[in-house]
Amino acid sequence: MNIAILFGGSSFEHEISIVSAITMKKVLKKSNLIYIFVDSNREFYLIDTKTINSKLFSSGEYKKSKQLTLKKGGFFTEGMFGSKKIEFDVALNLVHGRDGEDGKIASLMEFFNISFISPRLEASALSYNKLYTKFLAESLGVKTVAYEHLSKNDERKISMEYPIIIKPVRLGSSIGVSIVRNESELDYALDVAFEFDTDVIIEPFIEGVREYNQAGSYTNVWELSIVEEPQKEEFLDFEKKYMDFSRDSQVLAADISDDLKVKIQESFKKIYDPLFKGSIIRCDFFVVDDEVFLNEINPIPGSMANYLFDDFEGMVHRLSKHLPSEQKITVNYDYIHSIQSAKGKV
Amino acid sequence: MNIAILFGGSSFEHEISIVSAITMKKVLKKSNLIYIFVDSNREFYLIDTKTINSKLFSSGEYKKSKQLTLKKGGFFTEGMFGSKKIEFDVALNLVHGRDGEDGKIASLMEFFNISFISPRLEASALSYNKLYTKFLAESLGVKTVAYEHLSKNDERKISMEYPIIIKPVRLGSSIGVSIVRNESELDYALDVAFEFDTDVIIEPFIEGVREYNQAGSYTNVWELSIVEEPQKEEFLDFEKKYMDFSRDSQVLAADISDDLKVKIQESFKKIYDPLFKGSIIRCDFFVVDDEVFLNEINPIPGSMANYLFDDFEGMVHRLSKHLPSEQKITVNYDYIHSIQSAKGKV
Repeated sequence: MNIAILFGGSSFEHEISIVSAITMKKVLKKSNLIYIFVDSNREFYLIDTKTINSKLFSSGEYKKSKQLTLKKGGFFTEGMFGSKKIEFDVALNLVHGRDGEDGKIASLMEFFNISFISPRLEASALSYNKLYTKFLAESLGVKTVAYEHLSKNDERKISMEYPIIIKPVRLGSSIGVSIVRNESELDYALDVAFEFDTDVIIEPFIEGVREYNQAGSYTNVWELSIVEEPQKEEFLDFEKKYMDFSRDSQVLAADISDDLKVKIQESFKKIYDPLFKGSIIRCDFFVVDDEVFLNEINPIPGSMANYLFDDFEGMVHRLSKHLPSEQKITVNYDYIHSIQSAKGKV
Repeated sequence: MNIAILFGGSSFEHEISIVSAITMKKVLKKSNLIYIFVDSNREFYLIDTKTINSKLFSSGEYKKSKQLTLKKGGFFTEGMFGSKKIEFDVALNLVHGRDGEDGKIASLMEFFNISFISPRLEASALSYNKLYTKFLAESLGVKTVAYEHLSKNDERKISMEYPIIIKPVRLGSSIGVSIVRNESELDYALDVAFEFDTDVIIEPFIEGVREYNQAGSYTNVWELSIVEEPQKEEFLDFEKKYMDFSRDSQVLAADISDDLKVKIQESFKKIYDPLFKGSIIRCDFFVVDDEVFLNEINPIPGSMANYLFDDFEGMVHRLSKHLPSEQKITVNYDYIHSIQSAKGKV
């Protein structure tokens, strides 16, 4: 199977997307990978799979690679004798953060009719924004942690008790996130978060809360990963989380009761089906008194959470054969015709 | 000012987009219009402004027009001697329904760095879906009518009292909408709605409810239209609503109290700011016992609701100078550099 790995992007998570993408070489061994890089300027490049390495990008050397044009049906190289399509069976969207997770890449793929693995437009727009994720979870009967919402120009007033955690609504990988232990720290933490986003959500910071990650997809059956209890310190900062993006060996399942496992899996399924069909996502849950709370949805998890699956590559292949298809719309001109026959001409 | 009118689309509302677009010729008289048609196959064509008429599209004759390629910075004609950019100051997104209102066109414009008037990606994704519109309004403290939600495969059980109104969540222009007066009519109405969408919302049908429309935008100041009380029969079906798309002369303001007018305007502003910046939208409200309820958001209203404004063309010009700008993200390679210096090479 030929899989195009789409990575990079105009995003704060640009470089971790590069790490995720390179990791795919180690976990998609039976597939033929075609690397398509989106640079920070949103130009597409075809990167040689044999020689791909992170320095190629940090040095700017990638610019010597063939540039690609996105058009109806795929990515093309343009040359003297016309354009040539880059052939692949499916594109795997590995652009973390803006463009990749907010729905732009999904929009491009749908508009230009390219088969792709990724949350679709609506799923992306809702899960990229932590505030909208709350609305979504509530509507699906999945509990979330209590929260407050502040916009950049709002009065900086919080009703919640400290300690709290402040998160920009639209970023992943813990960028701009702070724990605030008392009011004197609040202003600085908000200044940091508002550097990255116009909106933040504020949640109680629950010391030592048990956290579990569940990844999965629906091919023609549910394919759920093991449940992992992530290693953690107070909370994972960017550098520590970053390591997830290069993980390629399977981890051990968390030692939890079957009952709790089922609760986590049921919550995952409620979130996933049907909105996230066509994607492989990871949901992070908190567990308090055996109750499961959605913490966040990772629509394009680091290294696709491959390390949580027994047969990651097989799942990617199966998923590429069970992607949701766009609704067929037949455009007609009935009304225009009826005006024309009534009036002669419009 | 050179304004590109983007219209057509792969949408059930394709032909009314054509009507809306042609109407712009009558209301944007001081501007130079450049017509860019997206056909149902999602190919772009440059349509001659002088000769544009609805038959051009229904007959398929538009295919003789110059085809355009969407690339970084704009739309281009491709010829023997390279590609040539179509010059304009701003694109006005007039694609009703799918692609135009769901966020795909907004994604394309943002990704390819084209200045455009339209709701942005998030605003589109939330307002295109009537269920998500409910979440949004609730979070902003704007009241909406009570509702239930059904997916295609759900059990067809409704707790609400009849009569009810059933609406596909993702369509405008009353397509697939039915009023159901008792249980015996329910199945057929749901069958109709599920022809068009996987999800429906169900609301009480309020006989003779007072309805008011408010359009507007924020340029560097609020530019709100008059409040209109739309003509209505039981509810506006497609053909009747359709007439809105060709309206070009100003209507009279509804005869309402200043107090109610302020309530409607305040609700509009809550919805619009900041999510809808860069767009001209119309919100439709119900009023019951002097309380204002959001009925729906029209992210790309028929003929841009020009007939509600005193100086529509001036507003378009002003808005094009006050469009929201994308957050600037500087991509860096700090982490990759640090791994490289630690390990020699990654």
